[in-house]
Order: sequence, then C-alpha cells, then structure tokens
Amino acid sequence: MTAETVNSTPIELTTEEIFAAHEGGKLSVGLTAPLNDKRDLSIAYTPGVAQVSRAIHAEPALAQKYTWASRLVAVVSDGTAVLGLGNIGASASLPVMEGKAALFQKFAGLDSIPLVIESTDVDEIVETVVRLRSSFGAVNLEDISAPRCFEIEERLIEALDMPVMHDDQHGTAVVVLAALTNAAKFVQRELSSLKVVVSGAGAAGIAVAEILMTAGIADVTILDSKGIIHSGREDLSGIKAAYAERTNPRGTTGGSAEALNGADVFVGVSAGTIPEEQLAGMSEDAIVFALSNPDPEVHPEIASRYAKVVATGRSDFPNQINNVLAFPGIFRGALDSGAKKITPEMKVAAAQAIADIAASDLSADYIVPSPLDPRVAPAVTAAVSAVAEASKA
Amino acid sequence: MTAETVNSTPIELTTEEIFAAHEGGKLSVGLTAPLNDKRDLSIAYTPGVAQVSRAIHAEPALAQKYTWASRLVAVVSDGTAVLGLGNIGASASLPVMEGKAALFQKFAGLDSIPLVIESTDVDEIVETVVRLRSSFGAVNLEDISAPRCFEIEERLIEALDMPVMHDDQHGTAVVVLAALTNAAKFVQRELSSLKVVVSGAGAAGIAVAEILMTAGIADVTILDSKGIIHSGREDLSGIKAAYAERTNPRGTTGGSAEALNGADVFVGVSAGTIPEEQLAGMSEDAIVFALSNPDPEVHPEIASRYAKVVATGRSDFPNQINNVLAFPGIFRGALDSGAKKITPEMKVAAAQAIADIAASDLSADYIVPSPLDPRVAPAVTAAVSAVAEASKA
Repeated sequence: MTAETVNSTPIELTTEEIFAAHEGGKLSVGLTAPLNDKRDLSIAYTPGVAQVSRAIHAEPALAQKYTWASRLVAVVSDGTAVLGLGNIGASASLPVMEGKAALFQKFAGLDSIPLVIESTDVDEIVETVVRLRSSFGAVNLEDISAPRCFEIEERLIEALDMPVMHDDQHGTAVVVLAALTNAAKFVQRELSSLKVVVSGAGAAGIAVAEILMTAGIADVTILDSKGIIHSGREDLSGIKAAYAERTNPRGTTGGSAEALNGADVFVGVSAGTIPEEQLAGMSEDAIVFALSNPDPEVHPEIASRYAKVVATGRSDFPNQINNVLAFPGIFRGALDSGAKKITPEMKVAAAQAIADIAASDLSADYIVPSPLDPRVAPAVTAAVSAVAEASKA
Repeated sequence: MTAETVNSTPIELTTEEIFAAHEGGKLSVGLTAPLNDKRDLSIAYTPGVAQVSRAIHAEPALAQKYTWASRLVAVVSDGTAVLGLGNIGASASLPVMEGKAALFQKFAGLDSIPLVIESTDVDEIVETVVRLRSSFGAVNLEDISAPRCFEIEERLIEALDMPVMHDDQHGTAVVVLAALTNAAKFVQRELSSLKVVVSGAGAAGIAVAEILMTAGIADVTILDSKGIIHSGREDLSGIKAAYAERTNPRGTTGGSAEALNGADVFVGVSAGTIPEEQLAGMSEDAIVFALSNPDPEVHPEIASRYAKVVATGRSDFPNQINNVLAFPGIFRGALDSGAKKITPEMKVAAAQAIADIAASDLSADYIVPSPLDPRVAPAVTAAVSAVAEASKA
C-alpha cells in the first residue's frame, strides 16, 4: 500500500507552474439547474422563486431543504496563522482558503466558500460569522492564531446551531490519534498506556493533548517554548494554566530533555527542533511524530535511529499526518446527519475510521492511509454520522 | 424579434416543479484546477500555495490575479424587501439570492455567492460587508428596503475600493432608461423633451428619476403614497426632501391625476394602481411603464387604449423591463476594466447599449431585447468597459 520510502524525494514544483495554476483563483460557482429559457428563469428566479421564499419564511426549517446553505461549508480565516507564514492577513490567506474549499469539494462532495475577515478582533470575527449564519450550513475555521482561536471557536459553537470546527486544532488532532492508534498497534502497546509528550501549546498542541486524553491516554505532557507545562509554573494563564492542571500527571518539570526521558511518544507541532541525544532518552518502542512544516522538529532519518515509528507532516516521507484525511468526512458526516455540533466522540470515531483503513496493512512506514485514498472520506463520514445518529436516539 | 403578443399567456408553473428545482439549492462550487494526485495537491494546497500567499502578502495587488476574488460578485441582502414579499428575513431571501448568483454566472460568466445578513441595522450591514472585503471583487446589493438601501449603498461605495451597486435601484433604472430611449424613438419624440411621472419614491423610483435626469430629461415628477413630491411639502425628509428640490420643475402639486395631466410618460414602480381615467389625461404620444410585479399598476390592455407604448415587469406581456438585461454586463464590464466604482456614465452607457440592440427592429411591442438575448450582456459589458477605460485615460 505504501509507495514511499524514507528516501523518497520531494515533489519538484516550479514557481511558474504554481502561479500559473493559481491564475484567476481555484474555484468557480456553477448552476445545478438549467437557465436556458423563460420557463427555467421563471422557476429559478421570479416569479417561481417567490413560492420557495414564502415557504421558508413560514417554516424556517425548509431552508435546509431548499437552499444550498445546508450543504455549504464556510472556510473562515483572519489570516493570522497561515501555514508556516504567520500573520499575513486576510487577503494573502485567500489562496489557502480557496484550496481548502476545493478539498471539501474534491474529497467530500461539499460545496464550500472561503470567507476571509479583515479583522483580528475576537468579538468582530464572531459577530461577523454570526450575522452571516443563514448563508451556510457549517463553519471550518482555518489558520487563526492561538490563543484567539480557542475563544473564537468556543463562542461560535455556542452561538451557531451548526457544525463549527477549527481544523488546525481538531483536524490535526484526529489524524494524530489515528496514526498513534496504529503506531501503538504496530509496537504492540496499549494506546492508553503510552507516555506522550506534545511539543507546542498552540492550536494544534492543545487539541492533540485533548483528543489523546479523550481517547484514554492518561500520561500526556505538553511543552511550550519555556519547557514543560506544570502546575508549579507561575507564568501560565488561560488555556495553558487549565492544561497545567489536567496534564502531566507525574508532575515532571524542566525542558524537553526531562520530558522525553522515558517517554514513549513525541508529537511535535511547534516550530522547534529536538536534539538527537534527547531522542536517545525515550523508551525502546519510541514513536516520533515530527509534524512541523516544512522543517520537521527532527529529520525522519535521524528519528528512525531511536524510534520504531516515525511520521511527519510532509508528503515526501512516509506516514504523512495530513488533515485532509479528517476534515472532509467530519463535516460531511455532521451535515449528512443534521448534527448541530461536532462532539469529542465524533472526532474519536473519525480517528478510528482513519486508523481502521490502514490497520490491515500496517508497517512502520504505513500507519495512516494516503491523503488521496478514496476510502477515507466515506469511512469518516459514516463513522461521524453513526455517532451523530446514536446520540439522537 | 418579438415572439410575444399582448395576449400571450403566462408560463404555467406547478408548485411541485418549482420546489423540486430548488431541492439542495441552485448553486455549486467547482474546482478550476485538477486535484487528482499528490502533485496537484502540492500545487493547489501545501506546500505550493504558500508561495502564492507570500507573494500577495508582499504585493497585495497580486490578489487580483491569483485569487477568485477579482471575478467574484457577492450578492448581499438582509431580506427586508424581497420581490413583492416584503421583509421576510435573511434566510427566506436566500433562494432569491441564489437565483441572482446563478444569473451572474449564466449571463456574464461571473462567479457569484449569496451572502445574507441577519441584521437590519445599517451600521452592522456596512461593517459586515467591509470586514469581508478581501473575499470578493464586487458587491451586488439586493432587496434591501428604502430608505436604508440608499445609505448602505452610499457608505459601501465610499468604504470599498470595488464596484458596489444596489440592483433594485440601478438595474431597474438602467433598463427603464433603455426602454424609454427606444419608446421615445418609436413615438418620434426627443428623450429630453418628455414630461415623466415616476410613481414610487422607494429604491427603484428614486434611481429611475435620477438616471432620467442624468440622461437629460428635465421634467421629472415623483409620486409617493401621499401624492406629488414638491418643495412645499412639510412631511418630507432625507432623500425625498432632496428630490423635492431637484425634480418637479413646474412645481406641480396634488396627486396622480394632477401629475399625469399632460404627462408623456408614466413609470410605475410602486404597488399602487392608476385609474383608467387618469391615463386619459396624458399626452397623445403617451408611454406607460407599469412595472409593479406581479400586478402592474394598470393592465397593459387597458393602458394600450391611451398609450402608444406599454411595458411591464412581466414576462407574459411584451416589453418586459427585466434587470437581467443590465446587471450582468454592468458588473462584468466594471470588473473586466478594473473599475473601482460604477459611475452614472457607465449606467447611461449600459442603457444605451441595451437600447441599441432593439433599435433596428423597433415596434410598439419591442422596445427592449428579450432577457435571454445573448447579445445583450456582451454589449453592456463592452459599453461599461469603454466608459471605464476612457475615464482612466
């Protein structure tokens, strides 16, 4: 199933072909019904459309059936944490959001529009999306910097009666859990018994820690730029202070060396680096996910000297942790089932569905399916829908 | 060129077929580039897209070239004045806005997304659209009630560096001017010499009066629900007070009977009715545009007893005044030429282009082209672009 090796070379792209592919943007809006004669016009527009509008006015739930909103995902960003580029602003983030919308269509058959907001104020972003709520059926928050992303997501989930998810947090977390599930199987360890170190306390790091705990892993330790997050630190506030209480059950202190000493799993979602000698301190069945892009925290060839399973965020190494494995099916499953929220249980079910697809061909170089594996999105959709349906019953 | 007669019957539509055509909505989002393999993914999304985002961050004008925003029209409504249905709210207005977006694609090849706003507050609507400004290249305001529509349009034109137009005002006005240009030709009168009565001081009425004056007609009188708008009325404020000073040069007072006495042209854009005996008081070359939908101010058969040319807003009578003749080409021309505003000169040029297409086959029943005439949008596009280019020079 895996065509790649540790030595596979990156795909060579020229600047010319990248820019040529982006001319005029990457999306278009099409019609789902013909508009070829007066009859078509009279149905899709006046006078026919008035009947549909009147019906929705009388019974608002009919908007689900007779508008495109119910299957439309808004990809919303303020451009503050775009890829590895940082705060480049709304307009410069638009090509990324167009790409994301294209992925929704390609992998889940969902319509999607990018909406980039020229504001970095939490209140303004929330109220802008809330005012537009009748225009779409779900919100994929994207590339919003921490800690603002936590509050924006929380407030939108509260305010909107539809699925809302910040993909940089939960898409990453779901695929990490899927990969770790299979890595644990490969090294013949119980998932829940693993000692995990998460490097990075931003959007992805916090969400990864959270989903691992939801999945039953008790020993999770988070590193930020100042070292291990623990309840004795006085420089922590907000969400980091909350996670100081909920993680690090052994009360470890110090830096990455202390954290990695005896650890089973390293998950890097920071822009930092991990020295080789620290990896040497990990347990003998070590698992290393060095997910920083484009430069992993440690080169996978070096990591593989100390770890039995290595993953990165890159397509030119084995075991690419790619959010596209998760978000299309999660949103499709939530929309198909009419779910109003994306719950922790749905995320865990999505991770299990992704893991299951790779499980029968497991190897050190194949713990997650390829991002292009066509089995993934339908499986995730079904798993998420099933959880949603079960919670209705 | 005209296939219709005064006795043509309306298109019969069943409720079933209208609702069936609206299931799942009328729009879809498609991809303009393939996403079939890792190479495609690496170009349209990470890592390739980062180069494009970085370039736009360094040189913001590149967003015009490398995103879909520059050819994307946002159809924005608050649902306060939807067709003849009134204030039915944002969600119920969405089928109309989807239809409008579909028309932009069909007639002008422009991508368009509907954005409906759950607020009727002028400040909130303006700030919502302004915050989203990097997401699209033009704004078609739609079905926003008067007098709020005037302030919203004015403030957005001021705030945004892109074409903004409230179609209920200016689309209607442009097609009325086109039709009146040809009607005057048909009755062999100078356009500028006509005495015109506009019934209705809402969005369409004010814009019709304005464009007729821009086109050189000096004698324009507006009627509101209380009668002729004149400078002696003490119940007028805001835009109506302003037009009391600028219209009605003969200082007429009274109601529709007094206004129509000796008038050459009646343009009805209110929901009112005009008694037959008042039409009898019009000049002998009378022109009657009874544009209320679905019920014209006077039935065209009755109007034709007193008028040489009659037009309505309906597709089942001759001379349909349909905004679709104007807005696709106006926006396409403005976007193609990089115009930052839609000027009065562009609107007059659009009207002339529409009139020109019907001019060679002129008859009492053919003063405007059919809404489906494929020559119209390209001609309007060219005319608007030419004005925009000339104003740059």
